[in-house]
Amino acid sequence: MISKKMTALVNNSSVIRAMFEEGKRLAGIYGPENVFDFSLGNPNVPAPAAVNDAIRHIVDEEESTTIHGYMSNAGFEDVRHRIAASVNRRFGTNFSTDNIVMTVGAAGGINVLFKAIINPGDEIIAFAPYFGEYRAYADNVDAKLVVVPPHIPDFQPDLDNFEKLITPKTRAVIINTPNNPTGVIYSEATLGAMAQILERKQQEYGSEIILFSDEPYRELAYDNAVVPYVTKYYKNTVVGYSYSKSLSLPGERIGYLVLPGEMDDAENIISACNVATRILGFVNAPSLMQKVAAECVDIDVSENVAIYNRNREALFSGLTEAGFECVKPEGAFYMFVKTPVDDTEFAAMAKKYNILVVPGSTFACPGYVRIAYCVAYDTIVNSLPGFRELAKELGL
Amino acid sequence: MISKKMTALVNNSSVIRAMFEEGKRLAGIYGPENVFDFSLGNPNVPAPAAVNDAIRHIVDEEESTTIHGYMSNAGFEDVRHRIAASVNRRFGTNFSTDNIVMTVGAAGGINVLFKAIINPGDEIIAFAPYFGEYRAYADNVDAKLVVVPPHIPDFQPDLDNFEKLITPKTRAVIINTPNNPTGVIYSEATLGAMAQILERKQQEYGSEIILFSDEPYRELAYDNAVVPYVTKYYKNTVVGYSYSKSLSLPGERIGYLVLPGEMDDAENIISACNVATRILGFVNAPSLMQKVAAECVDIDVSENVAIYNRNREALFSGLTEAGFECVKPEGAFYMFVKTPVDDTEFAAMAKKYNILVVPGSTFACPGYVRIAYCVAYDTIVNSLPGFRELAKELGL
Repeated sequence: MISKKMTALVNNSSVIRAMFEEGKRLAGIYGPENVFDFSLGNPNVPAPAAVNDAIRHIVDEEESTTIHGYMSNAGFEDVRHRIAASVNRRFGTNFSTDNIVMTVGAAGGINVLFKAIINPGDEIIAFAPYFGEYRAYADNVDAKLVVVPPHIPDFQPDLDNFEKLITPKTRAVIINTPNNPTGVIYSEATLGAMAQILERKQQEYGSEIILFSDEPYRELAYDNAVVPYVTKYYKNTVVGYSYSKSLSLPGERIGYLVLPGEMDDAENIISACNVATRILGFVNAPSLMQKVAAECVDIDVSENVAIYNRNREALFSGLTEAGFECVKPEGAFYMFVKTPVDDTEFAAMAKKYNILVVPGSTFACPGYVRIAYCVAYDTIVNSLPGFRELAKELGL
Repeated sequence: MISKKMTALVNNSSVIRAMFEEGKRLAGIYGPENVFDFSLGNPNVPAPAAVNDAIRHIVDEEESTTIHGYMSNAGFEDVRHRIAASVNRRFGTNFSTDNIVMTVGAAGGINVLFKAIINPGDEIIAFAPYFGEYRAYADNVDAKLVVVPPHIPDFQPDLDNFEKLITPKTRAVIINTPNNPTGVIYSEATLGAMAQILERKQQEYGSEIILFSDEPYRELAYDNAVVPYVTKYYKNTVVGYSYSKSLSLPGERIGYLVLPGEMDDAENIISACNVATRILGFVNAPSLMQKVAAECVDIDVSENVAIYNRNREALFSGLTEAGFECVKPEGAFYMFVKTPVDDTEFAAMAKKYNILVVPGSTFACPGYVRIAYCVAYDTIVNSLPGFRELAKELGL
């Protein structure tokens, strides 16, 4: 009785649900402190105090009908103005209120942009390993997700294969940097080369290709790594941002799209994104959280980054010392570890040590597992004996 | 460069945007107090004090990582439990946590349900006049919206024509009671008759037809009118609720679906709604507002209803005394007024008196205009001289 598209998704999804249930089951038997759940990108670090301060302050001082009321589908004008100003200040860009559309998180933003620009049969290119939901988002607009194979072992984008996979039907390319699941950051040189390829292919095919930069992890960069602002390299760029990770607000569903005026047909695309926000059922990004985001727009999140960095160092040295292979993440809070056996089997073996990780197959990259280290430091430290045992069992 | 589907929507949508801009322009010239904007269903009544109290209390007392974090796509279990209990208490139903899926407002809920059950080419039946967005929601899943013509002048559902329009492809029927834009409430007898027709047609075609009851106005009923709970009449019923109107929280995007266990294939439909919530990009309903809704679940909103009722009485007597014809609304906060001339022309004529109303054509019912009376009482009183002038101009 459910739709055909949904049938496959429900069956698929129950694999992940089973893992979630397994985590709860194990916690019941061994105690939560003895279960090492690295499966979810749900920040363990609390939101900065400024977030709850902003909530109290807004609720005390602003009109209820404004705080909780409808506004333009694109969001409150003052909020969009402050966000544009902050982006300009931090990244040397030149956006205005009209270039910002507030969204229900980054996932909402991707769906809005796809709805605005994609026709059925269009192609959207992603780079493996990629966040598995991209496939569902492409399917929502009946587009074909074209996958550039992973570039092993450094997981930088494979630009040669990328160029070969661009066709006259390519309408969008989605990148995610800092990357989930690898932690890799695309450099200026990489983005410059990617832009040149796109320009060349647009000219060759007489087409327009949007480069969508999915950036929920923008602020989570370690060792002073620079995360270049993608609109500077290619004019048909749209940025999708979320406060889920930087402000630890994943449940609140608050983010925004940056839609530069330099884009081809920018005015229509911006209008279409407003309409898409409405008709997809979002209507607008949650109103109070829009105002909170505006108050916290320039907040210093280096303290949170330091916490994740401590986790990263502990996990990376622990795993490599145990014999595992992995690229040291430059950003985000994931480690993508090579599995000497099939990744699904590896995940099952890890579970025996109460360690929960996600098989790389979920990210179109078998032979690896993703470890989300947005957990308590103790969880990492206490998981290491299990990882060492697992390494022995695997003969590492 | 925008998608083909979106091109028409953007052009269409600019008509409404033009009205909104016109309102702002007029307010600039004549002062906001002299512009009577009845165009939007944006409650003028502030949220009950309990809402902001709940926000402060939750932020002060609960863990940040819980309040603002991820939870199951269906929403917090304790929130869904409290909502199920409240529905059971108030309407004599028997739902549990599993029957509730938290949604990004009612619009989010409709899109989730449609995504879960609709295949391309399926038919969804709506009764004119209907909320214009239903057409876009049907189009999001490539369904055909089949419209039962309006039953004039009482705007009760035309069940004879309804029965004739049900085909083997009918997969869902959407009703909205109390109704936007007419204020009509469907009686027990009406719902019983509708259920019989659906049962009969399901049997005839060997099909399963979901009755979707879109209920953001459930609590807004006047003169002690009863709003029957639709799941009691027909087992394949899904209820979509929103706190937008009852708690004056339209910008916060918080509501829920009720998915009864008695439905055919209930377990799969519930799973599919969870997955749809995730893949459509909602991920989950905004987390803090879920908790606020749970705290306010049994709140008495009669004070707000009294405010809208005062508006209703003033507007209804003012308009009928001026010579306009309209069914007195039993619920919601809209009046659907007959126009002696073309409704778009009527709206243009009204604008000369700084009165903004929405043509009935927007609701697939030309010859009427919708007046949203969720405005300040003074706006209504001060608009009446203009309405009287307009009546004279029209020879009423």
